[in-house]
Amino acid sequence: MEDLRLWIVGSIGIDTIETPAEKRAELLGGSVTYACAAASFFTRTGAVGVVGDDFPEAFRARYRQFGIDLAGLQTRKGGTFRWSGVYEADFINRRTLETKLGVFADFTPHLPDPFRNSPFVLLGNINPGLQLHLLEQVRGQPFVAVDTMDLWINIARPDLEQVIRRVDMVTLNDTEARLLTDRHNLLECARAVLAMGPRYVVIKKGEHGAMLFSAQGVALVPAYPVERVADPTGAGDCFAGAFMGFLARTGAARVDEPLLRRALLHGSAVASFGVEAFSTERLEQLTLREIEARVQALRRMSTPGIDAG
Amino acid sequence: MEDLRLWIVGSIGIDTIETPAEKRAELLGGSVTYACAAASFFTRTGAVGVVGDDFPEAFRARYRQFGIDLAGLQTRKGGTFRWSGVYEADFINRRTLETKLGVFADFTPHLPDPFRNSPFVLLGNINPGLQLHLLEQVRGQPFVAVDTMDLWINIARPDLEQVIRRVDMVTLNDTEARLLTDRHNLLECARAVLAMGPRYVVIKKGEHGAMLFSAQGVALVPAYPVERVADPTGAGDCFAGAFMGFLARTGAARVDEPLLRRALLHGSAVASFGVEAFSTERLEQLTLREIEARVQALRRMSTPGIDAG
Repeated sequence: MEDLRLWIVGSIGIDTIETPAEKRAELLGGSVTYACAAASFFTRTGAVGVVGDDFPEAFRARYRQFGIDLAGLQTRKGGTFRWSGVYEADFINRRTLETKLGVFADFTPHLPDPFRNSPFVLLGNINPGLQLHLLEQVRGQPFVAVDTMDLWINIARPDLEQVIRRVDMVTLNDTEARLLTDRHNLLECARAVLAMGPRYVVIKKGEHGAMLFSAQGVALVPAYPVERVADPTGAGDCFAGAFMGFLARTGAARVDEPLLRRALLHGSAVASFGVEAFSTERLEQLTLREIEARVQALRRMSTPGIDAG
Repeated sequence: MEDLRLWIVGSIGIDTIETPAEKRAELLGGSVTYACAAASFFTRTGAVGVVGDDFPEAFRARYRQFGIDLAGLQTRKGGTFRWSGVYEADFINRRTLETKLGVFADFTPHLPDPFRNSPFVLLGNINPGLQLHLLEQVRGQPFVAVDTMDLWINIARPDLEQVIRRVDMVTLNDTEARLLTDRHNLLECARAVLAMGPRYVVIKKGEHGAMLFSAQGVALVPAYPVERVADPTGAGDCFAGAFMGFLARTGAARVDEPLLRRALLHGSAVASFGVEAFSTERLEQLTLREIEARVQALRRMSTPGIDAG
């Protein structure tokens, strides 16, 4: 059997989400769900996560529909991770109503053998101790990106710093970057994270796009202006999953900054589709052709003409 | 005497500004000051405004240093407009401590004859009634851009709507765009403003750049990531002044969308210098060569490579 080129670890959840326009319950969610679905447009992707014995067969079928490899999906006795939240009028700020960790509380990820040689790894937002545990299981020198959240910066900073030292790329949102580095200016934040070890730092700014920092300087990654946002949940995970999928697809021996820029643009495009519907519903209807069209539109929007003046 | 290619109306003030790092008093400020200084790198620019008899000769000399035409500057008995404010830790949000309108309260702008044939006009943020009064005084078909603020949207909407109907371009920040159109999504906001008459709408998002809307679609204008912000006051005015100056310099018979994109990029570049010091202090040291270098840097940062994948 062919080794996977990318696997992704993170949460798998059942969400209840209320936006100013609509309330939906029993939605397939979690960072692994969004990221793997987004990556699947570019490469076959493995999911590493845990669900309870209440996890609906229909959701498992949804994964298979995206061609996601489920060898890394554990099913444990108990309840699947559940999250419910409500978005404010801006469709950006949100309030968590309830979190039930369920079987996610005792998650110990185990990497299936065919995943161990994958050249690309996305360590989604889980306890950094578990991220380290997974890094111990990989073989070779994969390109590893890590995502995290304010919780781990606050309660597991030493482990998180160890993870950051060992990976190629860190993705954070602007608030997390400031919390992690105790600086305000994002250039200074990024420099501080780069100094911890990784070659690349991506600071995500939601609807305002993202910034890629490296030894080559700064690259500004535009967000696609979405006509109608239905549910912003998972946008960051779609972004990360898609750019890792794009990188994995290219099979480039070495990831470099120009390739990363193109990958991040694909991340923006897929994320912009993701928020057009709840859960993975828009991604289920999405084609690579539509993604490429939006990438081209993003290029047109963000490429200033040659300056003859 | 040669007619001016651009004039700008707005406030001229003496500011007291406190940032988390520094407090400065008796600063030359106001939208006309920032916008004319920024425009002056590209074209000789006329200022239309009012000051009191307390306006320091040193400030007048500062205007002359930028080559600004002061024929439209009225000096009235009384105090110059004064504003004092304090910035929060993010160097973005600010609180006004005091506003003294002084002679600005009874400002009735009068256009000097050599200004009347200018092909470019920037109606800075003043009472829309006065903006209309000025539009009555122009000859020919100049390219007119208008800036405004929440105050006028709230208390002078009918006049403001009349102005918007008669101009070529409207610049607003995101909050103002939402207030004016009672919509949240910026694409919808822009569409609603375009429906009021102007050919172009620019929505300014501060450190997140700006968006240009027209019949040609959307263009994303990046903000230059500034290393160290000293004082963000006037950034929007520098942006508007510089892009109008750039347009005026080209002498293009017709302003079109590609030219506007280039102009806006120059606006971003000049604004990014403006915030590096208080008042116009950084602009006084600035060269066109430095502006062009930052424009090129912005291009490099925001132009995604050709997609071969």
